[in-house]
Amino acid sequence: MTTVTYDDVLAAAGRISGLALRTPVLEVSPGVYFKLETLQHSGSFKVRGAFNRILSAGELPGSGVIAASGGNHGLAVAYAARELGARAEIFVPEVTSPVKVAGLEALGAHITQTGAIYSDAAEAAAKRAAETGALVVHAYDQGEVVAGQGTVGLEIMEQTGGVDTILVAVGGGGLAAGVTIGSSAARIVAVEPEGIPTLHDALRAGRPVPVPVRGVAADALGATQLGRVAFEVLSSSRVSSVLVGDEAIVAARRELWRRHRVAVEHAGATAYAALSSGGYRAEAGERVAVVLCGANTDPATLAIG
Amino acid sequence: MTTVTYDDVLAAAGRISGLALRTPVLEVSPGVYFKLETLQHSGSFKVRGAFNRILSAGELPGSGVIAASGGNHGLAVAYAARELGARAEIFVPEVTSPVKVAGLEALGAHITQTGAIYSDAAEAAAKRAAETGALVVHAYDQGEVVAGQGTVGLEIMEQTGGVDTILVAVGGGGLAAGVTIGSSAARIVAVEPEGIPTLHDALRAGRPVPVPVRGVAADALGATQLGRVAFEVLSSSRVSSVLVGDEAIVAARRELWRRHRVAVEHAGATAYAALSSGGYRAEAGERVAVVLCGANTDPATLAIG
Ligand SMILES: Cc1ncc(COP(=O)(O)O)c(C=O)c1O
Ligand SMILES: Cc1ncc(COP(=O)(O)O)c(C=O)c1O
Repeated sequence: MTTVTYDDVLAAAGRISGLALRTPVLEVSPGVYFKLETLQHSGSFKVRGAFNRILSAGELPGSGVIAASGGNHGLAVAYAARELGARAEIFVPEVTSPVKVAGLEALGAHITQTGAIYSDAAEAAAKRAAETGALVVHAYDQGEVVAGQGTVGLEIMEQTGGVDTILVAVGGGGLAAGVTIGSSAARIVAVEPEGIPTLHDALRAGRPVPVPVRGVAADALGATQLGRVAFEVLSSSRVSSVLVGDEAIVAARRELWRRHRVAVEHAGATAYAALSSGGYRAEAGERVAVVLCGANTDPATLAIG
Repeated sequence: MTTVTYDDVLAAAGRISGLALRTPVLEVSPGVYFKLETLQHSGSFKVRGAFNRILSAGELPGSGVIAASGGNHGLAVAYAARELGARAEIFVPEVTSPVKVAGLEALGAHITQTGAIYSDAAEAAAKRAAETGALVVHAYDQGEVVAGQGTVGLEIMEQTGGVDTILVAVGGGGLAAGVTIGSSAARIVAVEPEGIPTLHDALRAGRPVPVPVRGVAADALGATQLGRVAFEVLSSSRVSSVLVGDEAIVAARRELWRRHRVAVEHAGATAYAALSSGGYRAEAGERVAVVLCGANTDPATLAIG
């Protein structure tokens, strides 16, 4: 069992300092805070885990690091590797759009497009890693990755002076688990789309189980099941699971742009959707932070999405 | 002569606290800060001056407040009036787009569309104000407006622990003048598009003079000449005037989105353009803040603009 501790998150914070940004917090109304991880390098929180995983490994092999993802995780690993002067190999499924491949290439990553879906690419990446000895950076299910994401929770508590509750989106659960550990005293509201209930179904089944992957946030929250590390952390903590519909996510994303001029992708609006739709109701005086976790989106869709 | 003092800015900060947002600061690289006034209510810093002007007036007449502007100033006055429960009349020229008129109406403002260009609408607004006794909120040339905008400078100094230099865009000069006073110790770099050199030409002529109004940022920076209050403040301070070309503004705006996921309008990218184009070069170790002052833009243009 990989147990991630508060000290691991503190150590991660030291490691990634000056590499990942300490993103600002915006108090939008009294006691309601947005953690603007949208402004993070590579456009999402994912660089935190990537940096912490790579820097925890000590000396890297010449083959560098390897990851599978055509999305935010791939971008984050490519970005972190470039900053650290390491080679990055990113495996993406054949369906990945040319725009995303170009984005990864612009960061200097070596791309292999293979397999029809994500899990095929992930399998090919694992095989390749076994051959080359490259360091595998998992999208969520490694202790160092979870500890890295946990620095989001640490910063929220420091920057706000402490909140009662943190709302955070769940895909494979690395971010939610990290924030749970890193924020220690806060209550965690873990929000997922109804179409991808990885945590919700895992809590009900008593273990991670495969779920369907559907809906507007599938490109970023579309893990097929909760990670083992995340399950271990989230099943033994004061975590509430809240599901939100796609309409609520779309409306939240539109409101974040229209009212607050924060550009987010659908995954980045998911936690806020619980608040704006009333799926989660804060009590009077409750201090609440919402993690706006990603902004890798075509801005043209903000006005209409 | 309207002299605006540091104490006026401090008083403004007290008045507008809880109404205008204390927008966050992002440290993008060591010693380089973005003041994210893009996230301000109504999408620009303009609500600061509007709130301070209205709240300084004491009891309002039943006719409320009046302003001329189809742009950010109009939105800001309409927003502030709504929050304070006051009536707002906004005069806009006939060319104002239906989208902008709808935006003002959504804030509950009473709109009068009149005149071919802005100065016609402004004249009509002044005439109407003389009849109704409504409080005129000028877009830049009133002491209370300048003091309100100055809270941006005050916050920058508090939030960063002090910077050496602040880059800020100039239209009528209310923001630059306010920031000059509110930041006291910092050096001000006042940035304008080559196509609208209100400060540049005023400093050269020794008084505000009419300038042409051209280019991509004209919708927000297109004052035809520098305000009297701004001239008084900026001509007697350690202010550098820097001009940037439209290509630099467009490139800066694109970079702010692509690299930092901050959505800005062209006026909001103008100060940053001085830094990104090399028009202003910071020395090694110089601590620099850039005011990103507005985000009222069609996001569809971020990707391509
Ligand atoms: C923007 C964004 N939000 C949330 C998540 C979910 O993170 P996790 O898989 O750690 O739950 C992801 C994963 O890629 C993401 O890209
Ligand atoms: C976004 C933005 N930036 C800058 C300015 C210029 O402000 P000032 O007229 O106070 O110089 C304006 C004015 O409307 C604006 O809307």
